[in-house]
Amino acid sequence: MDRTTRHSETRYGNRPTMKDVAARAGVGLKTVSRVVNSEPGVTPDTERRVQEAIDALGFRRNDSARVLRKGRTASIGLVLEDLADPFYGPLSRAVEEVARAHGALLINGSSAEDPEREQELVLALCARRVDGLIVIPAGDDHRYLEPEIKAGIATVFVDRPAGHVDVDMVLSDSFGGAREGVAHLIAHGHRRIGFIGDQPRIHTATERLRGYHAAMRDAGITVEDGWVSLGSTDPERVRAAAEEMLSGPEPVTALFAGNNRVTVTAVRVIAERERPVALVGFDDIELADLLGITVISQDAAAVGRTAAEHLFRRLDGADHAPARVELPTTLIPRGSGELPPA
Amino acid sequence: MDRTTRHSETRYGNRPTMKDVAARAGVGLKTVSRVVNSEPGVTPDTERRVQEAIDALGFRRNDSARVLRKGRTASIGLVLEDLADPFYGPLSRAVEEVARAHGALLINGSSAEDPEREQELVLALCARRVDGLIVIPAGDDHRYLEPEIKAGIATVFVDRPAGHVDVDMVLSDSFGGAREGVAHLIAHGHRRIGFIGDQPRIHTATERLRGYHAAMRDAGITVEDGWVSLGSTDPERVRAAAEEMLSGPEPVTALFAGNNRVTVTAVRVIAERERPVALVGFDDIELADLLGITVISQDAAAVGRTAAEHLFRRLDGADHAPARVELPTTLIPRGSGELPPA
Repeated sequence: MDRTTRHSETRYGNRPTMKDVAARAGVGLKTVSRVVNSEPGVTPDTERRVQEAIDALGFRRNDSARVLRKGRTASIGLVLEDLADPFYGPLSRAVEEVARAHGALLINGSSAEDPEREQELVLALCARRVDGLIVIPAGDDHRYLEPEIKAGIATVFVDRPAGHVDVDMVLSDSFGGAREGVAHLIAHGHRRIGFIGDQPRIHTATERLRGYHAAMRDAGITVEDGWVSLGSTDPERVRAAAEEMLSGPEPVTALFAGNNRVTVTAVRVIAERERPVALVGFDDIELADLLGITVISQDAAAVGRTAAEHLFRRLDGADHAPARVELPTTLIPRGSGELPPA
Repeated sequence: MDRTTRHSETRYGNRPTMKDVAARAGVGLKTVSRVVNSEPGVTPDTERRVQEAIDALGFRRNDSARVLRKGRTASIGLVLEDLADPFYGPLSRAVEEVARAHGALLINGSSAEDPEREQELVLALCARRVDGLIVIPAGDDHRYLEPEIKAGIATVFVDRPAGHVDVDMVLSDSFGGAREGVAHLIAHGHRRIGFIGDQPRIHTATERLRGYHAAMRDAGITVEDGWVSLGSTDPERVRAAAEEMLSGPEPVTALFAGNNRVTVTAVRVIAERERPVALVGFDDIELADLLGITVISQDAAAVGRTAAEHLFRRLDGADHAPARVELPTTLIPRGSGELPPA
């Protein structure tokens, strides 16, 4: 419980409290509380004095009522990499549900996959006094977070690991999932399998590529030049990569899509081809069942929930060594991954 | 420009400034600036005094550097109703892009369709000193926002109108879009058309229902009991409603789905039926092109961008009367809405 005490000491030293307001207005704490909560029993003159002290100190009622009740502002920040990526919808909602169950508000922001933006946003949330942070990082060096973590901001990294700081992490098994998906294609007779993934500086992208290589190696298949393409998930880039792999005298007969953005474009490209092309995508997508798309599904809600639960355990004082949780993925066969080579 | 002046006066009255820090520490403004920006030329003793004043006043460097540079904290808040609804992905990203072009950070939160939660979140964001707010409201009474608006927080409502406060609004033409979609089904020979929509307290749900009734009236069709179902968009509820409309001796031959959540479930229900059922959905959904789903598309990114541009014009001092912008929708025929009655 030592850590909890330190926690609350370091957190509230520089935030104006009701006590500060009372001292400045020259009244008792109960009087400030009455004014703040619009309770009767305060003369207009006293109310004015308290209000002036509140204004002068920048004391905010909404937050501070919570601070007094719970010993903290009861808000957590979630930093995503892309607000428009559907993977983060259920993840965010799960975090929000856990936050709500703890009486806390969730505020979000997006780094748009830009490490500088990530840092700016994280520090802005800290400056706005969130109690905890859940970060899906864009960058790979998070030493800028050290002062905030020391100051008591509980932090959990999600989906991708933290760099150079020792914090809780909740990840999906990207390596194992991709290995299983590629092995599934091999089991259905494919040997010429293309891999299209996200940018190589993104941890999940390289982990999934590692899974691809492991499955190919397990089956004794030598990966040829031109079977692997990492880069932006913009439809144009993915389309060009897929079309190149599917062209020429010896095209690939199957594709492994490194994430949901890649899968969506790969499905479109394949729909336009005459010959069937097998496909397994990492991440489930809405209506993929109706389109018969075989996927490696990560449970985005479970990832979010697990991360939020870790965060609140820290906020409640848990002081064990930082944990690294890796959640399993699930292969969902729906047709596209079970097609034999054309 | 009168309003701009009033704006800055009202905004910074209760926020600790560098000047307050300087006064409390008994040093000059330049000295505080040096400490805050970690510049040399300050003795350790002076630095300690400045730091104590910063702590005592709750002055935060990250924010206040921006406040001094731009005259504001450069952050805007976006309150959504559901983090997991894919309609808000492109909307949020468009808001973020405009915010970034103005050097501002975006922080989000979700009301989860709960009016109390909406109010709590909006006030929490105000307490964290956002400069502006974009709100997709859950409730229909927003008088709680009046003090914040008076205090200079620029506010734009999106997707649904504000209640009892006079602010900028950016909406889609829900009435016109639904009317066009239902008229499209009628033009393809349908007379028995079911409408499944969101909860009746949601403005867009009732506007779309009004569009349905207008199209039916235009065609001289009397809407029968059991053809209209409003309620939660949970798959179970929508499935039960759709199955009921499609059963019995005189089932409907077409469905109009009031939003993307309803469409997704309606597509699944229809896929299980033997007879074809025509379908038009409000909102586009990913991969709807490959599934041949006819939709009334709203441009979520344009809605977000327009709202954010209005907000920044207000923050730049525009003081015209609150505007109400209604963006048009587009019918995209893809097959499901062009099926004749079975």
